Amino acid sequence: MTAVVPSADRATALARTMTQDLSTAATIGATGQGGISRFAWTDELAEVTAWVSGELEALGLACEIDAAGNLIARWEAGSGGAVMAASHLDTVPNGGAFDGVVGVLGALEAVRILKREGFEPARPIWVGAFMDEEGTRFGAALFGSRAFAGQDVSASLAATDRDGVSVAEAMRARGFDPDRVGEAFRARELSAYLELHVEQGPVLAAAGRRVGIVESISGVLGFVITVKGEENHAGATPTEGRRDALVGAARMILALREKARAQPELRATVGRISAAPGTFTVIPGEVTFTVDLRPSQPEVLEPCQAWLAEMVAEIAADEGLTADVHRQYALIPTMMDPAVVDALEASALEQGGDPLRMWSGAGHDAMVVAEHAPAGMVFVPSVGGISHSHHEFTESEDCELGARVLAGAIRRLASDGA
Amino acid sequence: MTAVVPSADRATALARTMTQDLSTAATIGATGQGGISRFAWTDELAEVTAWVSGELEALGLACEIDAAGNLIARWEAGSGGAVMAASHLDTVPNGGAFDGVVGVLGALEAVRILKREGFEPARPIWVGAFMDEEGTRFGAALFGSRAFAGQDVSASLAATDRDGVSVAEAMRARGFDPDRVGEAFRARELSAYLELHVEQGPVLAAAGRRVGIVESISGVLGFVITVKGEENHAGATPTEGRRDALVGAARMILALREKARAQPELRATVGRISAAPGTFTVIPGEVTFTVDLRPSQPEVLEPCQAWLAEMVAEIAADEGLTADVHRQYALIPTMMDPAVVDALEASALEQGGDPLRMWSGAGHDAMVVAEHAPAGMVFVPSVGGISHSHHEFTESEDCELGARVLAGAIRRLASDGA
Repeated sequence: MTAVVPSADRATALARTMTQDLSTAATIGATGQGGISRFAWTDELAEVTAWVSGELEALGLACEIDAAGNLIARWEAGSGGAVMAASHLDTVPNGGAFDGVVGVLGALEAVRILKREGFEPARPIWVGAFMDEEGTRFGAALFGSRAFAGQDVSASLAATDRDGVSVAEAMRARGFDPDRVGEAFRARELSAYLELHVEQGPVLAAAGRRVGIVESISGVLGFVITVKGEENHAGATPTEGRRDALVGAARMILALREKARAQPELRATVGRISAAPGTFTVIPGEVTFTVDLRPSQPEVLEPCQAWLAEMVAEIAADEGLTADVHRQYALIPTMMDPAVVDALEASALEQGGDPLRMWSGAGHDAMVVAEHAPAGMVFVPSVGGISHSHHEFTESEDCELGARVLAGAIRRLASDGA
Repeated sequence: MTAVVPSADRATALARTMTQDLSTAATIGATGQGGISRFAWTDELAEVTAWVSGELEALGLACEIDAAGNLIARWEAGSGGAVMAASHLDTVPNGGAFDGVVGVLGALEAVRILKREGFEPARPIWVGAFMDEEGTRFGAALFGSRAFAGQDVSASLAATDRDGVSVAEAMRARGFDPDRVGEAFRARELSAYLELHVEQGPVLAAAGRRVGIVESISGVLGFVITVKGEENHAGATPTEGRRDALVGAARMILALREKARAQPELRATVGRISAAPGTFTVIPGEVTFTVDLRPSQPEVLEPCQAWLAEMVAEIAADEGLTADVHRQYALIPTMMDPAVVDALEASALEQGGDPLRMWSGAGHDAMVVAEHAPAGMVFVPSVGGISHSHHEFTESEDCELGARVLAGAIRRLASDGA
């Protein structure tokens, strides 16, 4: 691995472009299979983080890696709570060059824009790159932002990768002390949190817009549904009188789609399914499938769970089946702060971005930080809506537009001190 | 293993009851888990076959194990084509005490009934037990009856069990010469073939009848259907515009059920399904499922295949998906012989059995032998319609009634010589 060397001086750092930076970042952790793999607590993630840190230092920011492995770069100025722009530098396996990276390099670009124009902040401005947003290696997603927001991450410290290495062990191997991870809690020091991200969906492209202003990040509800019927001989059992668990599950899958069609503030996905015993000639006695529900607003959360339970029970009863709905995980929807949303929208209008107010169906560091700081997000289009793939792509001009929107919002939010 | 000893003399053999015989057979290959495992070319199957052979010998029949491992017992009498009653003694894993066995022990009981009454056949009467009807060990179902019917079983000789042992090797280990399996072809010597079997379904019980007269054995068509859509992020992808392979598959599964509901001479089952990539948070890009179609009549065969292809293509197109229908196996429906059906029905009426004409959705040795001999089957009820399970059960009185129906039909069919 050849380390990427940061700009040696302020003039060089100021002269770089975001498009150059995206190209540089894409070389670090390149898999040779068209994508990038940068997982938590690896050399690749450390290298890209060190390089970004070096660029921010060359621009005059005070950089540190905190106790949770987050890069925190501080433009020390003014007084009161900081305005922070951040995202993440880790990826999914053989991932793309935009998810997460655009938010960190967009924040770096915003600092350059503000430095070039001689902006004098009335508040500190922070740039951040959070450790392990994706959770690829350990299944401990949002580790860094959760620690930054003061959440208890001790359960995640015990999570292990496929080689049996725990997060705590991986931290120690890189010189971190897992017992001190609580020291990363600094979200209380913010007056505003901004995150630029690729949309990861097709909404902006379908609407012909280049900028999305996120009003909420959906909740994520994960369920495992088990439907039980009667296993029987496929040939000898007449159609009437069958208690076919898969027929019941098929009706539930279609009911979920109809519900999501009727209610645009909800998305529903069945991603995994299996039927037992699972042979050609036996009517399935048991079917298990997953349901992922994404309510965009807090007020949709409870009704959609109640609807799911009722729908499953009704179809099961109608088919002579029994069914169990087990909730595996639940994140409640997060509303973005209206003032931050307004600042981002005003900045986007200033840039001629024709912004679209929308919601995010994907989770982001912003939803964690939002517990302690007024938060907002700006989206730029994902070509073809493709994400979590090395085929993901966002046009250079859209990435740069996103960075300018970020710069304008920082300028607004950091113009008045405490 | 303690070998079960056959009756030493004719008087003892004549005095036995079918219910005693069923109890005896159930001890051979008992698993200790409530069921019976007797697979092709094993000690357990050899032992039960030897015991049945001994009982038939004690009754005066000439017994042999043919080149394919079938037990063929001949009551040498009269002239012309033989009237044969047969079924099989092998089981599914931890199977029940009735599937197959009832047909062989019912034929034994029929011989006892005819011997006791001093019946003098005008034709030979044969009793048979075919090797490996179930195909449990090697996946080479109907091996014995196929050889008996002169089919080329060379592909089955190469089939292997989970230890890598081939049918040919297993045959040699028991002293059989796989190269001579063609010598088992004797179906041409029959004037009629009769098979008593448990129904394996709920039709007789639902109709309140104790005897079913089978008019046809359904065809069995096996398909693997692959539906392709677009893998995408469960959160970031709006409902409209999704190309969800599982939603398409769910519609196809329900269309199959509606088709089978509308057409009682057809049964349809989806027994296995999987979605890829198969995680909570990703819209399935590909779904694979099996379809088992059972047309009861030859004239239903082609139309139901054409309907399947059209239905799958239409739903796929409607959902923006592509789909492939691959036929994995196909057995055409087999009509039973009207004269044999009439003989069985007349015998059942004589016994007060209130017979129901019906079709068999399960496959049987009879459909193979029917290529060369006029064939018919008689069903007795399966309690709860349960089959291929150690929970399968048929009342003793129903088994005995089935044997009396068999005896009466043999008497009719063997009263006139060639």
